[in-house]
Amino acid sequence: MREVAIIGTGTTKFGELFDKDYKDLLWECFNTALNDAGIEKKELQAGWLGTYMPYAWGYEGNAGSTVAETLGLYPIPVTRVANYCSTGMEAIRNAYFGIKSGEFDTVFAVGVEKMRDVPSRGSLVAQHIEKGHPLFCKGRTAPGMFALLATRYLYEHNLTRRILSKVAVKNHTYGAMNPKAHFQRAITEEDAEKAPPVAEPLRLYDCTPTTDGGACCIMTTEERAKALGKDYLLIKGIGFATYGGYFTLQFDPTFDFLGFKATQFAAKRAYEMAGIKKPSEEIDVVECHDCFTITEIINYEDLFLCERGEGWKLIEEGKTYLDGKIPVNLSGGLKSFGHPIGASGIRMVNEIYDQLRGRSGKRQVENARIGLAHTLGGPGIVSCVIILSRAD
Amino acid sequence: MREVAIIGTGTTKFGELFDKDYKDLLWECFNTALNDAGIEKKELQAGWLGTYMPYAWGYEGNAGSTVAETLGLYPIPVTRVANYCSTGMEAIRNAYFGIKSGEFDTVFAVGVEKMRDVPSRGSLVAQHIEKGHPLFCKGRTAPGMFALLATRYLYEHNLTRRILSKVAVKNHTYGAMNPKAHFQRAITEEDAEKAPPVAEPLRLYDCTPTTDGGACCIMTTEERAKALGKDYLLIKGIGFATYGGYFTLQFDPTFDFLGFKATQFAAKRAYEMAGIKKPSEEIDVVECHDCFTITEIINYEDLFLCERGEGWKLIEEGKTYLDGKIPVNLSGGLKSFGHPIGASGIRMVNEIYDQLRGRSGKRQVENARIGLAHTLGGPGIVSCVIILSRAD
Repeated sequence: MREVAIIGTGTTKFGELFDKDYKDLLWECFNTALNDAGIEKKELQAGWLGTYMPYAWGYEGNAGSTVAETLGLYPIPVTRVANYCSTGMEAIRNAYFGIKSGEFDTVFAVGVEKMRDVPSRGSLVAQHIEKGHPLFCKGRTAPGMFALLATRYLYEHNLTRRILSKVAVKNHTYGAMNPKAHFQRAITEEDAEKAPPVAEPLRLYDCTPTTDGGACCIMTTEERAKALGKDYLLIKGIGFATYGGYFTLQFDPTFDFLGFKATQFAAKRAYEMAGIKKPSEEIDVVECHDCFTITEIINYEDLFLCERGEGWKLIEEGKTYLDGKIPVNLSGGLKSFGHPIGASGIRMVNEIYDQLRGRSGKRQVENARIGLAHTLGGPGIVSCVIILSRAD
Repeated sequence: MREVAIIGTGTTKFGELFDKDYKDLLWECFNTALNDAGIEKKELQAGWLGTYMPYAWGYEGNAGSTVAETLGLYPIPVTRVANYCSTGMEAIRNAYFGIKSGEFDTVFAVGVEKMRDVPSRGSLVAQHIEKGHPLFCKGRTAPGMFALLATRYLYEHNLTRRILSKVAVKNHTYGAMNPKAHFQRAITEEDAEKAPPVAEPLRLYDCTPTTDGGACCIMTTEERAKALGKDYLLIKGIGFATYGGYFTLQFDPTFDFLGFKATQFAAKRAYEMAGIKKPSEEIDVVECHDCFTITEIINYEDLFLCERGEGWKLIEEGKTYLDGKIPVNLSGGLKSFGHPIGASGIRMVNEIYDQLRGRSGKRQVENARIGLAHTLGGPGIVSCVIILSRAD
């Protein structure tokens, strides 16, 4: 069966982009990706759009037509997908099926989210509260949810919250080296320790910001990628899983607040497809979903990059730094790069693409050949893992 | 390449279902489809969910996890798709790619929408107005939009609005014979003519209602369908297109208010895939998107069931009745069956499934072998056409 290749990527600057609207971001990341791929727009046969919350900022992105209209892509189909923080990766995943199915040869996946310029009374949380959504009325915001895992994890392993600060320091280190990151400022462990509490034990620097941004990638068959004579990467595995997080303890009484089965199932499937037996040895670079610092540590374990219960040692021992055994979030992560929901999954794949093509400058992992990108969505309930590999 | 079959369907009663919530509808249509297919839940490897506006009724269906959680489907992936009124068909279309890709053998597509039990101050239109969406602030609601086409069409062909009433009469005739329809009452042309105006020339009986409902279908490979020893149908063509409607005249200066290019492109692609040369002769039964009576007439033309400009003659001459040359909307159509956005596209495919399997009772088309289902979404900007065929 035909292999699926990525041949070009585009990611906007992430941040508080008050001077750019939804369509500006869409236009920018799409055209960057198209130029990077070196193909004409008319070669595209279909697209998939990831935008999670169009209603929070004016309904742009509520349907694929926003993309087709903005980019002058009539009459090709553009499907909007949404699945919490895995929304962007769903765009890539369904585009992958579109090519694999034989229906399309060349397609794109794009994700855009505007999160910063909503007036406070119309803000997402405000809307949820106004509508009386029980989760939000009970204060179960994202920091409140993930704080429960942090508390449990620190207790189980007899750690202080300084281990969380170490993740923040690492990701801010790389954010500071990344001109597209939302936060481009290194911090110290003391900065993180003394930061204001958000939901204890999570403090300000343990939390990803809300961010505006867009990301796009162009996908085609390996045959077409070869014919273009360009360097390209293959998608060797895509795993997606749904499994009850802590909002739905009644559906998963075994949930221990120490890991997410959604990630574990998604990773297993992706590894199986890609033929990866020992992830920590075979994978050269990882982008994982560090919505909070605790999440990155738990992801180390859920992605089988270490033994269960030993995730904290990876950051303690510096093994997920650029010069470590398994570098993680050299982009700066959600933590520093920011997290526009629909864009993030594609942004992470684009980061891996750059790493495997040797385009990551000061943040480049030497001879990276296989990379992994991972998202975790909602109350830890959905997860996607994508494995990219060089073809040569 | 492997063929994709539908082996079971489930559609809830459509209507004002105040006694059932989103999850009740999901549960009901899913389990009906599963029983109809005669397979175990554990055979399902993935799902796609169509829900267009989860935010209007409590956020159920904002991600595929709503489905996995409600139906106890962990850990399989469920992707939410959304594309205006083609949302339900997008679920089928992406499920189709999932099977065609070789990644999955047996999957489901489900669509649910709750539209009736939102308090008026939180209603969809109210929210749009509150948020200041320019389209709604200018009064461009769906009836206002489609009224423009009706006015133009009647003028061009020197018709009175009685031609619209004839469509309403036909679809109410079949709705009255359909125990699952929202409106089960026959009307006369005089009823339709004397009904209160909504947006002239459209009157009450020219407009589809807002409705609660759910629909699901189970899809698998032809090989698996054969092995199950059941009657099944093949999806022979799926075309999806995006093309600027009248909201975006600047993108399509040729728009003449007499037809939708999105439908035309989608139909051409579906016919090409299915090898259909003369639609009006080869297709035995049609479900098309009669959001308004004028839309059904225009769809006759856009789907190439007649010559351009002659759609009105099909209804005038009764050719789209059960005993006519090309029966259309024998379910009662959106007009009588109702239109819960995410469910409709799947409900229409399920209706064609019943027709081709001879399960439509008094509304049965004799010896129906090839059927077509069609949706048109948003301001005429997206469209999907699906062709089903008996395999024998």
